[in-house]
Amino acid sequence: MQLATKEPEHRIDARGNAAREVIGVSFRLNNPRQRLPYLVERKANPVFQFAEALWYLAGRRDLEMIGYYAPSMRSYSADGIHLGGSAYGHTLFGPAHKGRSRFDLVTELLLNEPDSKRGYLPVFSPAELADRSNPDVACLAGLHLLPRDGHLNMVCNMRANDLDCGLLSDVFSFTMIQEYAAIQLGLRLGTYTHTIGSAHVNDHNAERVRRVLDEAASGPVVNFPFPAMPLDTAPTTIEHLLVHEEALRTNELRYTAQHIQTRLGLHPYWQQVVLLFELYRQIQHDQVDTVDPALLHALDPGLRWLMTRKWPACAA
Amino acid sequence: MQLATKEPEHRIDARGNAAREVIGVSFRLNNPRQRLPYLVERKANPVFQFAEALWYLAGRRDLEMIGYYAPSMRSYSADGIHLGGSAYGHTLFGPAHKGRSRFDLVTELLLNEPDSKRGYLPVFSPAELADRSNPDVACLAGLHLLPRDGHLNMVCNMRANDLDCGLLSDVFSFTMIQEYAAIQLGLRLGTYTHTIGSAHVNDHNAERVRRVLDEAASGPVVNFPFPAMPLDTAPTTIEHLLVHEEALRTNELRYTAQHIQTRLGLHPYWQQVVLLFELYRQIQHDQVDTVDPALLHALDPGLRWLMTRKWPACAA
Ligand SMILES: Nc1ccn([C@@H]2O[C@H](COP(=O)(O)O)[C@@H](O)[C@H]2O)c(=O)n1
Ligand SMILES: Nc1ccn([C@@H]2O[C@H](COP(=O)(O)O)[C@@H](O)[C@H]2O)c(=O)n1
Repeated sequence: MQLATKEPEHRIDARGNAAREVIGVSFRLNNPRQRLPYLVERKANPVFQFAEALWYLAGRRDLEMIGYYAPSMRSYSADGIHLGGSAYGHTLFGPAHKGRSRFDLVTELLLNEPDSKRGYLPVFSPAELADRSNPDVACLAGLHLLPRDGHLNMVCNMRANDLDCGLLSDVFSFTMIQEYAAIQLGLRLGTYTHTIGSAHVNDHNAERVRRVLDEAASGPVVNFPFPAMPLDTAPTTIEHLLVHEEALRTNELRYTAQHIQTRLGLHPYWQQVVLLFELYRQIQHDQVDTVDPALLHALDPGLRWLMTRKWPACAA
Repeated sequence: MQLATKEPEHRIDARGNAAREVIGVSFRLNNPRQRLPYLVERKANPVFQFAEALWYLAGRRDLEMIGYYAPSMRSYSADGIHLGGSAYGHTLFGPAHKGRSRFDLVTELLLNEPDSKRGYLPVFSPAELADRSNPDVACLAGLHLLPRDGHLNMVCNMRANDLDCGLLSDVFSFTMIQEYAAIQLGLRLGTYTHTIGSAHVNDHNAERVRRVLDEAASGPVVNFPFPAMPLDTAPTTIEHLLVHEEALRTNELRYTAQHIQTRLGLHPYWQQVVLLFELYRQIQHDQVDTVDPALLHALDPGLRWLMTRKWPACAA
């Protein structure tokens, strides 16, 4: 990020985005669970992060769900209904071969061949280039699952990554997919390596990225441990969560903190996510000046910290 | 390589190969033309290297051609006729979409959108995992072409690489593909970045790799500049070369150095390759004790150095 912002190798201007770029970048996270930065200058949006991760894990590609959390994604949909290449979950978890998904094929392989190097999940497809005006070509080339010594390591190959916006949410969601995969394989979470072909910062974000880097360089003022995904997380867990997600997104229901904590039958880890969705419902649908303080109070300190930085209605 | 050999992160044993491994490795070559190492302990085989590169560039997948140069590849063929995933050229240059290859789709895109980040050429296919006993699953996940400032950069994503055998020939062939692509796009050769998910050294090669590393660390004793691929290299050049290749491989013809240099209508760069094929014909078919010295004499010094290290019949 330093490199791309301050010492770019290239200046590019593709498809209307003037940017500075470095080619061929990679880094590794030894603790991929610690996937959220707590920086005032880079207000991460935990509601969107969890929504996106769940949207992927459920294999979805509908604009309806993801556009509610990230209205900017509407411009990537060719038909106003579906996302294309960037619906990575649809590619990974949707049917691929005789009713089994790519994810199924790879996890079945890895259960039978633990030290395998073959657990590659390609995402980018050559067909995406056939239509020159395709607004949404997958940025994720593929994910590689490597079970070793009781841990699941993952290597991610991105063809391109916007270091300001894309990188943060991609690392969040992909490490969530990694942790979910580890659970399905009965393994612990290993290392996460992220590789990027074109690592770039758009010119109009460069100033902000510089401030974020300065803040990060002066050392983290706060940090919060991110909890472990429950070991019983399964496809049904995701489905169950998304029933509540939809009810809140469409404003058909409203939940109190107590209801979420005692009535939904969810593990505390996933209760946090429903708390976030209800908070977001209040912000979007009720357009409140102040959200229900009991909800904020029920949040983990790290998520509360992020919510109060991000949304004025949470900061009161 | 140091890491995998001396400080491996993991010891693996998949599909019968005990190996030491490092996960998530990458490096960059600023001059990818300098693609051959001149090391006594690691006798690179330039005949095989050029044969493999041409086999890829011609989009072939027949065992007949490649098995002549690398008999060990026979065990990777499921039917004794074709190679599978490792016939990367077949995937890249064979028909993919309405008669156009993946390579065609990407080069057409890049001619129209020079700063594009979309020029990704996926190779590994999820279908390869459907058959659990598949002997030949592509190790190459994809190649990414990035034209910038008049140069063509490339990033290569490997799911797995054997650092002793695979790495050397992969870097050779992929940088040849890069240089060929640069010519088709009217660009100069840029940088080459190689990323590997599972970087490993088989235990039974570890001793040799250690010697190679020691030799490399003590500084290169010799080095030879590798010439630039001629700017008129086109698909017909490859076809033309492979006519001669086949005639020599099947022992239907034999060429003198003079014939190669004056009668084949080939650029001196490609004459070198036919000289290598004729030398190999003499070794394989004539089983000579000493090859024709005029052929050896006509070789570029770097190739002569490699040939005399590799084959006793060239060393006399
Ligand atoms: N998950 C995603 C999706 C898009 N992106 C950004 O969106 C851009 C899409 O534009 P192109 O298709 O022109 O490359 C990517 O280059 C990348 O910067 C990202 O960084 N992460
Ligand atoms: N081009 C190639 C082809 C194969 N290989 C090696 O062959 C192995 C194939 O075994 P797997 O399919 O079990 O991974 C790879 O892991 C890799 O070590 C390579 O390194 N380069």
